Amino acid sequence: MTNPTAAMLVIGDEILSGRTREANAHHLAGRLEPLGIHLREIRVVPDDHAVIVEALNALRARHTHVFTSGGIGPTHDDITADAIAAAFGVGIDVRDDARALLQAAVGRDRTLTPEHLRMARIPHGADLIDNRISGAPGFSVENVHVMAGVPSIFVAMLDALLPGLEAGRPLLSGELRFEVGEGRIAAPLRDLAAEMPQLSIGSYPFRDGSGYGTNIVVRGTDRASIDRALERLAALRRSLP
Amino acid sequence: MTNPTAAMLVIGDEILSGRTREANAHHLAGRLEPLGIHLREIRVVPDDHAVIVEALNALRARHTHVFTSGGIGPTHDDITADAIAAAFGVGIDVRDDARALLQAAVGRDRTLTPEHLRMARIPHGADLIDNRISGAPGFSVENVHVMAGVPSIFVAMLDALLPGLEAGRPLLSGELRFEVGEGRIAAPLRDLAAEMPQLSIGSYPFRDGSGYGTNIVVRGTDRASIDRALERLAALRRSLP
Repeated sequence: MTNPTAAMLVIGDEILSGRTREANAHHLAGRLEPLGIHLREIRVVPDDHAVIVEALNALRARHTHVFTSGGIGPTHDDITADAIAAAFGVGIDVRDDARALLQAAVGRDRTLTPEHLRMARIPHGADLIDNRISGAPGFSVENVHVMAGVPSIFVAMLDALLPGLEAGRPLLSGELRFEVGEGRIAAPLRDLAAEMPQLSIGSYPFRDGSGYGTNIVVRGTDRASIDRALERLAALRRSLP
Repeated sequence: MTNPTAAMLVIGDEILSGRTREANAHHLAGRLEPLGIHLREIRVVPDDHAVIVEALNALRARHTHVFTSGGIGPTHDDITADAIAAAFGVGIDVRDDARALLQAAVGRDRTLTPEHLRMARIPHGADLIDNRISGAPGFSVENVHVMAGVPSIFVAMLDALLPGLEAGRPLLSGELRFEVGEGRIAAPLRDLAAEMPQLSIGSYPFRDGSGYGTNIVVRGTDRASIDRALERLAALRRSLP
């Protein structure tokens, strides 16, 4: 069985200018891993229609799922919904069910403004993604899932979306910490990686108050293989002077 | 004058699995902005030779500079240097000056291990980037600048690299905070953006203890235009009930 793959497309000048620190990609990565959906690429692009359309078409052709964040608010620089419609070659309009969600969020007695209605514009053929925080929905077109950039709303939309997606075989992992720099264990690690190609063996150097160290992370879908690799690593650690 | 553009390529499974929170892109963005180098794209890709080569070739053809982070350590999953050589179609070997830097870092009396020497493998025709932290150098091949993923080393390499790059006209910015949601000011913002196309006017909603608010950021290369836009925004803010 081949696990589903995913890409994330982050849309927003504010990330590229250094004004805002991107937070949603790390959250998404942590949520997909236990579902067995492999996040294979993250791209951050500016609020530029042509660039967004090109990135969307490249990523949606290549991955089971594409998750986007940013650019679905009410202002002139929120151009994601139009870019999605253009990428799929479909129309886009205010939709009654999206309008009803916004009406419920602002209250029955208030009139929706043109800015509210801008957030009810949904590409034809999309499924809405619920937003329990502020009402304005995200949406999915085929394998592209369009969500807000504000982290609390991104998290809420992901909560609504993920249970409906097809999961893969869960990715499992184990980790061992070495109190030596990675150069000291590189050779046996290379041998272990060659011997167990079904696993991914990552080496993550760090430096703290007491000097250099390395975390070794073993990942795969078979628990017994991971345990065997961890035993080998523990023996290696005991053998170090 | 057209400002130079840049892309960043982050290489590492650990970001995509959610294990590590990426930190270098935000630092790079903040360093490039005052130099007038426009960061236009960030990509995160796994430790996969073919994927790295393809991303490198796409980005280096499109941008003045490409900055990479990750994958230049001593272990089997550090494959960035080979991918760079492959992308440029050049050879790669241990280089004497890189070896001398590593020898100086470990001390004259110690013998370099194969793992040290792996970090002295440099694509043909590259310029080294100094690493004041741990010795092992980064390198530039044409417009691609290859740096470490460990944040303290990435920062040190950038310190060594940036003064030698051609800068553009510095990007300037100004910011004004509104204590209303962005829907309330979307229409006048759209008008202002249409009227001053030489500026980029971004709208960044937030929510804090006291409710919804919006930061408006005005960016451009002409201080007088930015000041004019900020005066208009201040007048808008005074006019709100």
